[in-house]
Amino acid sequence: MLIVKKFGGSSVADKERIFNVAKRCIEDYEAGNDVVVVLSAMGKTTDHLIEMAHDINPKASKREMDMLLATGEQTSVALMSMAMQALGVSAVSLNAFQVIMHTTSAYSNAKFKRIDTERIFNELEQRKIVIITGFQGVNKYDDITTLGRGGSDTTAVALAAALHADACEIYTDVEGVYTADPRVVPNAKKMKEITYDEMLELATLGAKVLHNRSVELAKKYGVQLVVRSSLNRAEGTVVKEETEMEGMLVSGVAVDKNAARIAIIGIKDEPGMAFKIFDLLAKKNINVDIILQSIGRDGTKDISFTVSRDQMDEAVKVLKDNAARVKAQKIEADPTVAKLSIVGAGMQTHPGVAAGMFEALYNVGVNIRMIGTSEIRVTVLVDEKDVDKAMRAAHDKFIED
Amino acid sequence: MLIVKKFGGSSVADKERIFNVAKRCIEDYEAGNDVVVVLSAMGKTTDHLIEMAHDINPKASKREMDMLLATGEQTSVALMSMAMQALGVSAVSLNAFQVIMHTTSAYSNAKFKRIDTERIFNELEQRKIVIITGFQGVNKYDDITTLGRGGSDTTAVALAAALHADACEIYTDVEGVYTADPRVVPNAKKMKEITYDEMLELATLGAKVLHNRSVELAKKYGVQLVVRSSLNRAEGTVVKEETEMEGMLVSGVAVDKNAARIAIIGIKDEPGMAFKIFDLLAKKNINVDIILQSIGRDGTKDISFTVSRDQMDEAVKVLKDNAARVKAQKIEADPTVAKLSIVGAGMQTHPGVAAGMFEALYNVGVNIRMIGTSEIRVTVLVDEKDVDKAMRAAHDKFIED
Repeated sequence: MLIVKKFGGSSVADKERIFNVAKRCIEDYEAGNDVVVVLSAMGKTTDHLIEMAHDINPKASKREMDMLLATGEQTSVALMSMAMQALGVSAVSLNAFQVIMHTTSAYSNAKFKRIDTERIFNELEQRKIVIITGFQGVNKYDDITTLGRGGSDTTAVALAAALHADACEIYTDVEGVYTADPRVVPNAKKMKEITYDEMLELATLGAKVLHNRSVELAKKYGVQLVVRSSLNRAEGTVVKEETEMEGMLVSGVAVDKNAARIAIIGIKDEPGMAFKIFDLLAKKNINVDIILQSIGRDGTKDISFTVSRDQMDEAVKVLKDNAARVKAQKIEADPTVAKLSIVGAGMQTHPGVAAGMFEALYNVGVNIRMIGTSEIRVTVLVDEKDVDKAMRAAHDKFIED
Repeated sequence: MLIVKKFGGSSVADKERIFNVAKRCIEDYEAGNDVVVVLSAMGKTTDHLIEMAHDINPKASKREMDMLLATGEQTSVALMSMAMQALGVSAVSLNAFQVIMHTTSAYSNAKFKRIDTERIFNELEQRKIVIITGFQGVNKYDDITTLGRGGSDTTAVALAAALHADACEIYTDVEGVYTADPRVVPNAKKMKEITYDEMLELATLGAKVLHNRSVELAKKYGVQLVVRSSLNRAEGTVVKEETEMEGMLVSGVAVDKNAARIAIIGIKDEPGMAFKIFDLLAKKNINVDIILQSIGRDGTKDISFTVSRDQMDEAVKVLKDNAARVKAQKIEADPTVAKLSIVGAGMQTHPGVAAGMFEALYNVGVNIRMIGTSEIRVTVLVDEKDVDKAMRAAHDKFIED
């Protein structure tokens, strides 16, 4: 069996953890498997490198940032190889140039185009554990690129696809994907399985277990993932195309507290206003989520929408700076809101899930301020102070029952 | 003009020094020159990485050590490029894979075979300052190699040769090559010029200004070097094939305090004894310097020689472990000695230099324990307590007069 195992920065943050990871990999190796290990930079290394760079040049080119950041993973893989050698196992570390992990040219946000597999298979044939730098690639100019934060997950999935691996295991500091945040919902359960689509909705909504692009890639190439803990032996959560669980309408409940609501009140009720507003925001790279437009009255209407909380001030500024175009009576911003979502592939074929959620929240006295939906998700905007209570109510309603 | 400028680790140890180096390079660039910069790892980075590695695996493979250490220079070049960009100049950093600096396969001690120049010239044509990682290369397996300590000097010289550079400047924390250690000999003078051969003798003897292999390479390819300070504007020392100084028999005086004397007393006076002894030492990689063999008497003779002080105990152990082969009456070791050398290309054609040195030492009451010579060097072994006094006497005799 060929197994790709990916470990994040906290899993290799110090000597003890490096040896812990080395031993887990060696177990699989000694059981006769081919083992490919993908690593992130150790602990806070990437943050530290970014600090150094910003101290020298806050506007450093992305090309040079990638050149700098790539040293982090190279350090991890070399040290891991040394640890495995210390444990008597033959291992070899490879960086993006050595594998040749071809990416697009977009520095700091590159995407894989192709991964050469020859070197990796050669090393595996010599019965070595192959340890590969996550997060990075090489573009057509022979420059180093990086995939953006969390990119090591994507590296692992891309490698699993290219190598036709039998398993792709993503190790984190949690035991898997939960039906809700266990710190808020004590009876949250670890899921045995989840579909790619559900995982994508949950990842987007703040269940920061897997990098979104890695799930998209896994879906595209049909790479089955296992998310599990690097700290213990608990079975993790399998992410795959279709799950076998019956009767589960809702797989998980997610909360996103990084939300703010902006209301544009009393704009002229004429065609093109929504376009003008959201075009202004898009040009500033401000992502807008749920959008609500009121029915016009007295020749005016209101538009409200959510943005991430850290972009709220900028969004308000853009709108006010363009008052002549927007022509609103008032712009309000409220950072004391949060998004609560229920996600489940079963929703597609079962109407009434949204109604059930509204009922559950009504029963605990939580006011719903906005609503947004996708095929497998219902999201509501509530006051932040209510969101934990609302989460428990939704979890009780859909998961516990 | 195409200028290669090399800066060591202390010259790029922090933000301020990085900007200092960036500005010096930009001066040459703005004067219309093509500028290639070679950098070592920042400050104590390499030592720190070695510590990390040894903590994980004291016997880490050299292949993985090189993979690890190469991150140090990559960090330097990326940050330097950012600094130059902050100063408004177009710059690009390149590592050994991007240039393609082909080396032999010997990890931790590789030698350059060939350097591809295409990428460098392309970048120079776009009027960029090109910043290249020192100390590292790529071997035929596509693995990272390093050149050993001080290897960045060698990188600079090899690049200057490959690019047919018009100048190769080695920046250090001293102002150039001195006629003696200025801390011991207050009237030591900075040399304006020195020949490759003289520099090689001085480098070997502990005037740690230039890495020896870089001087050998410079000699081989006729690359004229300038050694100068990164901290001020003083003119440095030019290292070249022939100097134009007349009448200078002796260019410099060097002291090596890392010396020990071993005496093997009362060995059988029969053929092959010297071979047996030095073969034993060579097999343990113990370098022997000056050798003195006494005239035999009563069927026995004595052999004494010098080794570096940190190898003394090992040398004695090897000899004692092989007592049956060596058959000596007594083995003595003395770590309280030091070597004093005078070096000068002019010696070749002027007899009597050695005699002049012995006279100078006699005049200040310094006892000479052993003597060794090359074509352009006279070395004497003296008691360590006498060596500074002896150095000043030799300097007065040959340089001051």
